[in-house]
Amino acid sequence: MAPKSTLDNVISLCKRRGFVFQAGEIYGGSRSAWDYGPLGAELKENIKREWWQTFVRGREDMVGLDSSIILPTAVWEASGHVATFTDPLVECLSCHTRHRQDHLEENFQDKKGRAPESMAEIACPNCGTKGEWTEPQQFSGLMKTYLGPVDDEKGKHFLRPETAQGIFVNFLNVVTASRKRPPFGIGQVGKAFRNEITPGNFIFRTREFEQMEIEYFVHPNDAQKWFDDWVESCWNWFTDLGINPDNMRRFDVPDEERAHYSDGTIDIEYKFGFQGSEWGELMGVANRADFDLGNHTEHSGTKMQYFDQATDERYTPYVIEPSFGLTRSMMAFLVDAYVEDEAPNTKGGVDTRTVLKLDPRLAPVKAAVLPLSKKDDLKPVAQNLAAELRRRWNIDYDDAGAIGRRYRRQDEIGTPLCVTVDFDTLEDQAVTIRSRDEMTQERVSLDKVTAYLSDKLGC
Amino acid sequence: MAPKSTLDNVISLCKRRGFVFQAGEIYGGSRSAWDYGPLGAELKENIKREWWQTFVRGREDMVGLDSSIILPTAVWEASGHVATFTDPLVECLSCHTRHRQDHLEENFQDKKGRAPESMAEIACPNCGTKGEWTEPQQFSGLMKTYLGPVDDEKGKHFLRPETAQGIFVNFLNVVTASRKRPPFGIGQVGKAFRNEITPGNFIFRTREFEQMEIEYFVHPNDAQKWFDDWVESCWNWFTDLGINPDNMRRFDVPDEERAHYSDGTIDIEYKFGFQGSEWGELMGVANRADFDLGNHTEHSGTKMQYFDQATDERYTPYVIEPSFGLTRSMMAFLVDAYVEDEAPNTKGGVDTRTVLKLDPRLAPVKAAVLPLSKKDDLKPVAQNLAAELRRRWNIDYDDAGAIGRRYRRQDEIGTPLCVTVDFDTLEDQAVTIRSRDEMTQERVSLDKVTAYLSDKLGC
Repeated sequence: MAPKSTLDNVISLCKRRGFVFQAGEIYGGSRSAWDYGPLGAELKENIKREWWQTFVRGREDMVGLDSSIILPTAVWEASGHVATFTDPLVECLSCHTRHRQDHLEENFQDKKGRAPESMAEIACPNCGTKGEWTEPQQFSGLMKTYLGPVDDEKGKHFLRPETAQGIFVNFLNVVTASRKRPPFGIGQVGKAFRNEITPGNFIFRTREFEQMEIEYFVHPNDAQKWFDDWVESCWNWFTDLGINPDNMRRFDVPDEERAHYSDGTIDIEYKFGFQGSEWGELMGVANRADFDLGNHTEHSGTKMQYFDQATDERYTPYVIEPSFGLTRSMMAFLVDAYVEDEAPNTKGGVDTRTVLKLDPRLAPVKAAVLPLSKKDDLKPVAQNLAAELRRRWNIDYDDAGAIGRRYRRQDEIGTPLCVTVDFDTLEDQAVTIRSRDEMTQERVSLDKVTAYLSDKLGC
Repeated sequence: MAPKSTLDNVISLCKRRGFVFQAGEIYGGSRSAWDYGPLGAELKENIKREWWQTFVRGREDMVGLDSSIILPTAVWEASGHVATFTDPLVECLSCHTRHRQDHLEENFQDKKGRAPESMAEIACPNCGTKGEWTEPQQFSGLMKTYLGPVDDEKGKHFLRPETAQGIFVNFLNVVTASRKRPPFGIGQVGKAFRNEITPGNFIFRTREFEQMEIEYFVHPNDAQKWFDDWVESCWNWFTDLGINPDNMRRFDVPDEERAHYSDGTIDIEYKFGFQGSEWGELMGVANRADFDLGNHTEHSGTKMQYFDQATDERYTPYVIEPSFGLTRSMMAFLVDAYVEDEAPNTKGGVDTRTVLKLDPRLAPVKAAVLPLSKKDDLKPVAQNLAAELRRRWNIDYDDAGAIGRRYRRQDEIGTPLCVTVDFDTLEDQAVTIRSRDEMTQERVSLDKVTAYLSDKLGC
C-alpha cells in the first residue's frame, strides 16, 4: 500500500480527535457539509478571531458587518447571479445521471493529454456508456427556498452564494452610520451556499461553507495600488500565523478564467496535496472595479456613490475584494502544522510522535492540566489551577494514563503547553510546564502560571 | 402624539447609528431578516463571546460544536419536525391572503375579551371580509431547499429550525472524541431558519435568526436537579451582564402549551414593552427527557446511549436544554441599557443625553480617542495611541466637532471610556479619560492608558 499522504493523515486525525465529523453521519452522512466537533469549533473560531482582529478591529480603515443569508431576490438579479451563476450540465441518456460538462472535458484532458473533439468521445463516469449525452443545459449554482405562506415566484428566495452582496447593498448605510470615507473597507464572516454538483476533497469544496470577505472601497485611480497592497496583506496573514511560504503561491488568474465581474484577480493557493492537482485556492483578491455598486445603482435606483467634499467629486468607488475561504484556511493550517517527529520515551529510546505545530493563537486547546496521579491529594490543586486558567483560555484536564501518553494526546491536537501537577507541587507550590515544540520543561510557581501562559501564548 | 416608548427609541437609535439595518433596504427591504451594521456586529459578537466563555470554555463539563445548517432529511423526520413543526393556516376566500388561525383567534380574544365561537366571527385583517375562510391546512415552518442537480424528493433538504438536532446526532461522536461522560453538555451558536407567517417586532421574530443552545446530558435521576440548576445559571448570566432583574420573569410553561418533546419548560421573559403583550421570551430551559436520543436511536439504528463503567449501567441520558435567542438577547441588552439622563453642558446648564449603559464587556466600542483639536500637533499622538489600543480593543477615533458633541455620540452607542488628547498632552504626556456613566474625568499618563482601560473594562 502506498504511504499515506499528509492530507490523508490530517483527515484521519480530524475524524479521530473530533475536529470534523461527517454531517448527519448516523443517517449515512452528507457530502454537502461537515460538522465541526469540539476541537474544530475552537480552531475555526480562533481563525475567525485572528482574521477579525487583523483586518477589521485592528485597522482604522475597516468596519465589520453581519448581513443576512437570505436577501431579496432583486439583489441577486442585480448582482448577475440569477443570470450567470450557472454551469453547463449534461445528462447521460442511458443511466440519466447528470454531470458538469466542463468537468467531464477536464477529466478527459487529464487522462488523454488532449481536449476531446466532442462529447461523443466521452464516456459516462457512472455507467460507462460512451457519447450518449443530452445537449448541455445551464444549471444554477444558487440554492433556493420559499418564504411566506405560498411556494410561488413571490416567495422564492436564494441563499447567498457569497457574503459580498450583503456588503454592497449596505454601502450607503455604512458610510452614513460610521462616517467612513474611501479608502475604507467592510469585513464580514459568514456562511454561504452553492449547489456544487461535485463537492469533495474533505472540507475543501462543500455546498455549505464559510467565507471571510472584505470589500474595500477606493477611488478608481487608487485601485491598482490597493489591489497590490491587499495581496501582500493577505499573504502575510497566512505566513504570520505559521503557514510555510514554500507551500503557498500566487496565481495571476488569466483573463479568460476570471469571473465576469473582475478586472484582475490574484489567487493565493496552498499545496494541499490533492490527488491530481496538488494545489487549491485559499483565497483570492479581485479588482471588481465599479461592477457591483454600478449594478446596484442601476437596479435599485439608489445612487451607490461617494461625494468627496474636499475635491467636490462624486464617484462610484472601485472595489478591491479579498475573499477568504474560512474552512479552506482551516484545512491549510492543519495540513501545514502536521508533523511526525521523534520524542524521547521512558525507556531511554525515541518514539515517533504526531504533533500539530499550530500557532498558539490558533491552537484549540491552549494548555492541558495533568495531575501526575489520580490520587486525591493532587486533584484539588490541579482542578483549582484548571478552573483559574479556564477563565481566560480553553483548557483540557486529563488524568488518565501514563504521562507520556497524555503528552502525545495533547501534541496531536496542537496544545502548546502541558502543565503537570506532581507530588512536589504540594511542597514547593510549583508545577512543571512542558512545551509542545521543544519538549523542554520548566518549573513555574503556581501563582505565576497565568502570567507564564500569557507570555508564551501571546493571547 | 404619544411619547415614544423605550423600544421605539432603541429601534430608531439602532437604525440611525448602524446597529441594525433593514435587510436589502435599497430593494424595498425584507421582514424576514435584519442586517447587523458595524456596531451591531460587534455587540452581537461580544454577546456570543461572553456566552461561549461562561457556558462552554469556562466550564469543565462543557464542549463546543458547530454543526451544519443543512442536515440530511432523515434527521428532521426522526426529530418529529417534518410531521409536527406546522401551524394551522386559513385562506380568506375573498382576497386569498393566508393567515395563521391561532393568531386570528388570539387577536379576537385580545380585542373582545373572549374566545371566538367559530371562524365565522372573525374578519380578514387584510380585506375585512368576515367569516369567509377555507378549512385550516397544516403549514410547515421548515424552509426547504434542493441539493444536487435535480429538484426532486431526493434532493429536497431543510434548513435547520433549531441548532439542537445537530448536537443530538453528534452525541456519540463527541462522547468518543472528547471522552466526556454525563453530566456534560455541548454548546453551539448559529443560524436557524423558520418560515414564520408573521415576522415582526424588529429583530425579535424573524425567519432567519441566531440561537445559542446547550444540550446537557444527564442521568435520568438527576434531570430535575440539573433543570433547576440551569434555570438559575441562565438567569444569572443576564443579570451579571447588566439586565435589571425587575425587567425579567420566569414563566413556567403549562402542560398544554409546552412543545411535544418537553417534560417541563421554564421560559425567561424580558419586558420588551411590545404593543399588546409587553413581555417576550428571551430563552427557555426544557427538560427534553430521552425524547431526542430515543428518537434518533429508533430511526438511525445507532444506539444513542451511554454506558457507565463504574455502575455497569447502560442508559439513554436525559437532556436539559437551555436555548437562548441571540438576537432577542441583543435586543434586551439594548432596551435595558437605554437611558435618557442629564449631562452638564458648556454653558453651565444641563442637557438631556441619551446613553446606552451597556456592560463594558458588551459595549461595541470600548473607548474613543478624541484629539481636542484637528490641528497637526495632536494628531500623531492621538493616532499612535488609537493604534496601540486597537491591538486589543475596538476603538473609535473622532476628531469632528465640539468635544461635548463627541461625548454625546459615544454615550449614545455605549462607549464606556473617552480618551481626550489635549494640548497639555504634549507637555505632560498624559490624557484625560472620561467615564460614560459617572461622567468623571481622570488624568492618566500615556504609558498607563492600556492598563487603565484593561482594569476599567474587565476585558
